[in-house]
Amino acid sequence: MKNTNAGCVIWLTGLSGSGKSSIASGLKRALLKLGKPACILDGDKVRRGLCSDLAFSPPDRKENVRRIGEVAKLFADAGIICIVALISPYGSDRQTARSTVEAGRFIEVYVNAPIEVCEQRDRKGLYARARAGRLKAFTGVSAPYEPPEKPEIELHTDKLTITKSVTKILDYLKKPARGKGAGFFRLLP
Amino acid sequence: MKNTNAGCVIWLTGLSGSGKSSIASGLKRALLKLGKPACILDGDKVRRGLCSDLAFSPPDRKENVRRIGEVAKLFADAGIICIVALISPYGSDRQTARSTVEAGRFIEVYVNAPIEVCEQRDRKGLYARARAGRLKAFTGVSAPYEPPEKPEIELHTDKLTITKSVTKILDYLKKPARGKGAGFFRLLP
Repeated sequence: MKNTNAGCVIWLTGLSGSGKSSIASGLKRALLKLGKPACILDGDKVRRGLCSDLAFSPPDRKENVRRIGEVAKLFADAGIICIVALISPYGSDRQTARSTVEAGRFIEVYVNAPIEVCEQRDRKGLYARARAGRLKAFTGVSAPYEPPEKPEIELHTDKLTITKSVTKILDYLKKPARGKGAGFFRLLP
Repeated sequence: MKNTNAGCVIWLTGLSGSGKSSIASGLKRALLKLGKPACILDGDKVRRGLCSDLAFSPPDRKENVRRIGEVAKLFADAGIICIVALISPYGSDRQTARSTVEAGRFIEVYVNAPIEVCEQRDRKGLYARARAGRLKAFTGVSAPYEPPEKPEIELHTDKLTITKSVTKILDYLKKPARGKGAGFFRLLP
C-alpha cells in the first residue's frame, strides 16, 4: 500500500558547489507547498549519520551511494518524493541506485556547472583545501566525475537560477512517465 | 521544516514469531486510515536491501540496528510515523537508536510472547532449523535476547490479538508526550 502516488527519487548529481543542496531545498519547499510529501537525503548530512562509518575511497564511496539509493527507494515506496543531493561521481553507482526503483520513478538530474564556476563559489573552502593537497580524493580535482550520459534533466546552473532549476524539475514531474511495459503515470497532477 | 507533526519512531522489538510484522502491518493500515503518513522498516526486508552486506554476528547485528535506527530517524524527521519491526536483541543497540531521535518521538514497544508460543507458531520454520543447529546465532535459541527494561509499551501477544495490540499503540500516541525540557506534544490528535 502506498501513502500517495507521488513516490519517486529525484537524484541530483554534480560537482561540489554545483548547486545540488540549494536546488534540493527549493524543490522540497515547492513540493510541500503543493501538498506533496517530500524529503531530502543530503550527502553531507548522511555522512554524519547512516554512513558515518565510511570514508572517501572508491569502495566506500560506492557503499555510500548504495546505501543512500536503498534509503531513497524506501522513501519512494512509502509514497514520498525523495530528493537526493549527492555528488555520486560514478555512473555505475548511480545506475545501481536507479535499478532499485520502479521504472519511471527515478529521475536523474545532472546539476551541471563548469568546475571553474564551482571552484569560484567554493563556499565551504573545499576546492582550496583540495588544490593545496589537504583534501584527498576530491571529486573534480583529485578524483574523477563521470557525467551522466542520459539524465532525465540537465540543469546548467552557471546560467540557470535556483528558482528556474526548480521549475524545470516540477515541469518534468508533471509530464506522463513511462512505467513498466506500456503503463504511464504522472508524478504530479 | 516538517511535513507533519506526527513524525516518530515506533520500535517493535521481540523474538522471531512474537508478532512484530503483523502488528506493524495492522498499525500502518490504521494510521493511513487516519490520514497519517506511515511506513514500515521490516528487519527481514531491509536485510535484502540496505543491509544486504551484513550477517548475524554481534558486530553485524549492531551495525544492522544502527543503520535501521538512522533511517528511522530520517523518516521521523520527514514527518512520517516510521514503524520498525526488528528483533533488535541488544538493549544497548536499541538505546543507540533511541538516542538519535528527538525526545518523546521514540516509542519502544516490547512485543512479548513466551518463546514456547513463538516456537509453536514458527511460521517460517526458523526455530526448527535453529534447534537442529542449521541456523547459527538464532535469537532465543543460540543467541541472547535482552528484554527492554522500560519500554513505552509492552504487548503480551500470547494473550492480546493483533487488533488490540494496534489499539494499544494508537492510544499511546494520543497521549501527550514529553519533549525536550518542559515541552509537551501529541503525536496523534
